[in-house]
Amino acid sequence: MPAANKPLRPIWLDEASGDVNVIDQRSLPHELVVLELQTVDDVIFAIQEMVVRGAPLIGITAAYGVYLAVKNAPAGGAMDDLAAECERIKAARPTAVNLQWAVDRVFGEIKARPAAQQLGSAREMANLITEEEAENCRRIGRHGVRLIEAISQKKNGSAVNVLTHCNAGWLATIAYGTATAPIYTAHERGIDVHVWVDETRPLNQGARLTAWELGRQGISHAVITDNAGGHLMQHGQVDLVIVGTDRTTCTGDVANKIGTYLKALAAKDNDVPFYVALPSSTFDWHLRDGVRDIPIEERDPNEVRYMQGMTEKGLRNVLIPPVDSPAANYAFDVTPARLVTGFITERGVCAASEAAIRALFPEKAA
Amino acid sequence: MPAANKPLRPIWLDEASGDVNVIDQRSLPHELVVLELQTVDDVIFAIQEMVVRGAPLIGITAAYGVYLAVKNAPAGGAMDDLAAECERIKAARPTAVNLQWAVDRVFGEIKARPAAQQLGSAREMANLITEEEAENCRRIGRHGVRLIEAISQKKNGSAVNVLTHCNAGWLATIAYGTATAPIYTAHERGIDVHVWVDETRPLNQGARLTAWELGRQGISHAVITDNAGGHLMQHGQVDLVIVGTDRTTCTGDVANKIGTYLKALAAKDNDVPFYVALPSSTFDWHLRDGVRDIPIEERDPNEVRYMQGMTEKGLRNVLIPPVDSPAANYAFDVTPARLVTGFITERGVCAASEAAIRALFPEKAA
Repeated sequence: MPAANKPLRPIWLDEASGDVNVIDQRSLPHELVVLELQTVDDVIFAIQEMVVRGAPLIGITAAYGVYLAVKNAPAGGAMDDLAAECERIKAARPTAVNLQWAVDRVFGEIKARPAAQQLGSAREMANLITEEEAENCRRIGRHGVRLIEAISQKKNGSAVNVLTHCNAGWLATIAYGTATAPIYTAHERGIDVHVWVDETRPLNQGARLTAWELGRQGISHAVITDNAGGHLMQHGQVDLVIVGTDRTTCTGDVANKIGTYLKALAAKDNDVPFYVALPSSTFDWHLRDGVRDIPIEERDPNEVRYMQGMTEKGLRNVLIPPVDSPAANYAFDVTPARLVTGFITERGVCAASEAAIRALFPEKAA
Repeated sequence: MPAANKPLRPIWLDEASGDVNVIDQRSLPHELVVLELQTVDDVIFAIQEMVVRGAPLIGITAAYGVYLAVKNAPAGGAMDDLAAECERIKAARPTAVNLQWAVDRVFGEIKARPAAQQLGSAREMANLITEEEAENCRRIGRHGVRLIEAISQKKNGSAVNVLTHCNAGWLATIAYGTATAPIYTAHERGIDVHVWVDETRPLNQGARLTAWELGRQGISHAVITDNAGGHLMQHGQVDLVIVGTDRTTCTGDVANKIGTYLKALAAKDNDVPFYVALPSSTFDWHLRDGVRDIPIEERDPNEVRYMQGMTEKGLRNVLIPPVDSPAANYAFDVTPARLVTGFITERGVCAASEAAIRALFPEKAA
């Protein structure tokens, strides 16, 4: 565990030993287990098996993966071998663009340096990315809370109902979260806020992780099935939807956890504002058509067929469908920009259009 | 079990003993358990606890409930007491209109008869409703299969991909099912058909019941999360959606299992035909605004929090969210008529408009 006087984070470097520690998110909320990552293989395992998940956290973990690659490289190892290790990390999962972005950034920092400086330089860059992402989330909270404040005023202070899908909390980032940052900031400021938590099948990141985060902060919430959001919106019980994203095109199409698109359709149909919170590391500045071009991961069908949860005897898996029924498991979908009210970024809120996005990030040449 | 030479049904009367038997659908697909219903309380328990479910089957079970009320009435019992028992049955669940319709029909048949005829008359009417609903489903299959045939021809015989939500199969009716009837008929006719089965949280009637039915018939299918349908439609992997309904207004608004509305939105957004299959007993000829007026049942939040499935040691419940996180459990939602391509009824296919519905059922005066 990190030092007692520091807030819990999903990943931390033990500066003394140089080890990388992560919370094993597969066991939450029922057990808090910490794993040590010592090798690139450990990092790839952690990303693929979703010990860590969420685009910003995948990026940070991958950054420390490059650090571990340097740490474990034989004395006088070739830069080509290090580059190959970086490529292995980048291939761990296909959808989150932060993975490639973070690896390229750390590797770009060290590749021209003399061997003696590489380890320190990789560690520093991984630490820098971590703190930058924490600061980005803090800023997302400060920009996004204005949306909640405005609704609260309109409702004369009665609870603002926010619906979120999956977990885009501090467990998915490093601190504050993306979608949750405005919620945490509103709670800190004494605004009455209630969160509808989509359970988020198949891996239940909403029911397991978002509900756990909100409960720890004392924030009012209720877990609902992924099926329920449309009904709630039809009956005026959702004031605002905020979700995270794994990759967002420069034109505003949003890849996020499977089922996000359905909530965006329901929000549009009921005039509920639908916002996506993201640090700029999650923008893909090259892709223009999200539905066509963002690669959508297909995962093990057993993630759909089996469900993990707590029993009196500890965590158990139960089989839901008939033993011989096949299943399919698409991990993400793409919400077209036309369904997105706006983006909440570290630089402010903007519309879901290329012009508005590029106006906030003018240094990203087309 | 019913006689070996008869197809399995979800409910059957043992003519010799006069007992009513039902498959306990809570244990499927892993265990096939039969329960005997001997009293009105047994019938109410079976309907409330979802031993039986699905609007047509709820109606049939309720019809046999009236028969059991007569059977258990003391000699010389007052008609008022019987009427009170009927009201208790009608109040078992709020959404499916078939429940009220079937009870009123059986009670209407017996209430003017002399005491000596009431039991036989109630049994006959319950049997008649059962066989009428079986025949209605058979006809729904014959009308609906034309939609699948037309797509099959357009695709030159390659598989027609049908998405369905919840279970509107023979387990929800008495035979053939409603949404599944066109699929079964297509399969009988040698049309290549593949079914995307929404698992249908919280009680997983798709993963447990629809997948079991389809597997028994050797029909190609895959279980998917309720989140996945939008992605599949965006990528051309769904040719047709067919669902059942628990209550449909005379204006074409459709109450069905929670989450149906989200699939209807996705179908509209991707130009996928969205059909609702129903026997006319599921029309509510009095309501005009489904979203406003159809009562939506809220069930025990523990149905969301716990998930039942098979382990090596038998059926077990596992807890998904943190033990202190609340949940909400809305059982149905309403899909507005504007999102429905058409209805498949026992009299044919019609558009989702009052004029088209009334043209098929002209005897139902407004």
